[in-house]
Amino acid sequence: MTIPCCLRVFRVSVVRCCFFLWAFACPKAAAAQAATSDHAAHHTFVLPSFTFEDGTALPQTKVSYGTYGHLNAKKDNVILLPSSYMADHHDNDWLIGPGLALDTTKYFLVATELFGNGHSSSPSNTPDPYHGPRFPRATIRDNVQAVHRLLADELGVNHLVAVLGFSMGAEQAFQWAVSYPDFVDRIIALAGTARCWPHGVVRLESQIGALTSDPEFKEGNYTSPPKQGLHLFGLVWAPWLTSQQWWHDELWRGPTWPPGDTFQAVMAYFSDSLFANLDANDLILQARTWERHDVGTSPGFNGSIERALRSIRARVLYMPVQTDLYFPVSDARAEARFIPRVELVPIPSLWGHVAGGGGDEGSKRFISEKVAAFLRR
Amino acid sequence: MTIPCCLRVFRVSVVRCCFFLWAFACPKAAAAQAATSDHAAHHTFVLPSFTFEDGTALPQTKVSYGTYGHLNAKKDNVILLPSSYMADHHDNDWLIGPGLALDTTKYFLVATELFGNGHSSSPSNTPDPYHGPRFPRATIRDNVQAVHRLLADELGVNHLVAVLGFSMGAEQAFQWAVSYPDFVDRIIALAGTARCWPHGVVRLESQIGALTSDPEFKEGNYTSPPKQGLHLFGLVWAPWLTSQQWWHDELWRGPTWPPGDTFQAVMAYFSDSLFANLDANDLILQARTWERHDVGTSPGFNGSIERALRSIRARVLYMPVQTDLYFPVSDARAEARFIPRVELVPIPSLWGHVAGGGGDEGSKRFISEKVAAFLRR
Repeated sequence: MTIPCCLRVFRVSVVRCCFFLWAFACPKAAAAQAATSDHAAHHTFVLPSFTFEDGTALPQTKVSYGTYGHLNAKKDNVILLPSSYMADHHDNDWLIGPGLALDTTKYFLVATELFGNGHSSSPSNTPDPYHGPRFPRATIRDNVQAVHRLLADELGVNHLVAVLGFSMGAEQAFQWAVSYPDFVDRIIALAGTARCWPHGVVRLESQIGALTSDPEFKEGNYTSPPKQGLHLFGLVWAPWLTSQQWWHDELWRGPTWPPGDTFQAVMAYFSDSLFANLDANDLILQARTWERHDVGTSPGFNGSIERALRSIRARVLYMPVQTDLYFPVSDARAEARFIPRVELVPIPSLWGHVAGGGGDEGSKRFISEKVAAFLRR
Repeated sequence: MTIPCCLRVFRVSVVRCCFFLWAFACPKAAAAQAATSDHAAHHTFVLPSFTFEDGTALPQTKVSYGTYGHLNAKKDNVILLPSSYMADHHDNDWLIGPGLALDTTKYFLVATELFGNGHSSSPSNTPDPYHGPRFPRATIRDNVQAVHRLLADELGVNHLVAVLGFSMGAEQAFQWAVSYPDFVDRIIALAGTARCWPHGVVRLESQIGALTSDPEFKEGNYTSPPKQGLHLFGLVWAPWLTSQQWWHDELWRGPTWPPGDTFQAVMAYFSDSLFANLDANDLILQARTWERHDVGTSPGFNGSIERALRSIRARVLYMPVQTDLYFPVSDARAEARFIPRVELVPIPSLWGHVAGGGGDEGSKRFISEKVAAFLRR
């Protein structure tokens, strides 16, 4: 069945973007159709040869991305927006527009999508011999390398005003600052760190374990979706995504997200909707990309995150969320000690991790103001 | 095979007590053999008729318990120590002894074991028609009712100096204060609240989901242990038990707990040891007892936790742990607003939930001092 383009884009937007930025951060279907300055123009960059850190070279490697605004003649008005877990290039739409923090009358925004999101090269969309569980063991650095090729080779961009990212997007922002110290003026890290610290590994492995426990998973060689595993994956994910007090205060009783207004409806959203239509191997690929991340393992730093962080020349706006159970303020504070030019500005919100993606109105305002001021300086 | 008594006691101690109080809080094998004042004398109280809140009446209902010290003639030196999740009556041994906070030269300590721990009536040790998944839907109030019978009918005790409990033990302590306001002078709640708030329900359901996902579980009618489910249960449990910073700072590198000194060994402990030898139905029964708890649903309060808490006459020493991911300080603070005579004293520790059970030396000292002072007043 062929899905009309506008509906396809809408479906993609709803499916991908709603994970962590919630319904009110999603683009409207109409918005996605038009490539005006403040709405994404969607592209795919194909690398004919690209070798992942694990040594695998795919015959074709795709990076899906969107652009907003206009590239100026000097090509010096570019901000890169790498995506978060299973998100697409609409990840930061809530910050984008004329007069907003990411002002499309000033900046040319390049919003890239992580390997494994189902649009960029992913287990689900790569032919054999690299299909499914045979997809390369992608790292955050692999993603940064591929996007560097996109910027330098395809767009002719050799300098960035900033890299801004939420969650795994923040992981990428830190990697940019370490891998390309002269390429980037500023890093804005929203609810994400320069390394996935051990607690994150334990948590993500517990979630992966929930997914792979389904006998239908068959080590990734399923012929139909492992529904029970996807259900359990969502159930195990649920208590981590926001904060204990979010549940205590029943902040899910918002008018916008999630669907339903009872505790049972919220639970059903997590276990039956959030991940239900996604590919299990894609989910696992990105979770492992997430958990393996450590800027300290970049070439030249001998595994020392301290040395890697000390090497950063970009100015860093480091914004963890006070109640984030994934990337706690304590991890951010520990890293910030080693970053030469850093402003550590915790986001005061009860929305846990999702606050970093503009999950609540207060955080949207708080982040918007801080980002706008940081870009002006 | 008959296990010699001393070895049997040792095995029980190790298996049960090490869950949350860690190795250094466990009794020595030798200690468990002697019923001296500061070492437990083990007993079982059998109620010939006992009706659970769900209406089920077992033919025989057992409460396993230990006693320490000596009951005085006036029977007014009794402190009750209800147990935590899957623990036995040695749960609080680290606080017990001559000159310690729970001073066996002064107090007669009655340490009771929750239904479902495998010693008190449990899914695993109750004959059909109440075996396994057919065991009554036990509540915290059921446990309190049964122990009230033990105290009043068996021991002739009609007043308590205090109820002290850790985690689900704290849930019971609050229930005592609400159900029997004139029976109890003091409540000491360590890392546990008067209600399992919604986040706790979500977390526990995710853990139960991990266990029941094993095809071998067969809705509780397994004929051999659902090993894969028990493994996943431990894996999903792992990131909740301590704190993110505990993992960041690698505080597991202690000399006493857990076995092994690598990250991999710690992970293996959680997934392969912690719950591996326990009964799946027992684990689920107690998790559901935990998550259903709410003093507000006690008779006479119309479901209002505020009214239930306002009715408490006992003095309350309320000690949540600063980094507890189960029972966060925010939940304790919200409840404390309604308790007439409460001292809210958060435990400053990076050990998360287990700090409330004396998991680290600093918390042991901190709790011991506060409890001793509170009992003196």
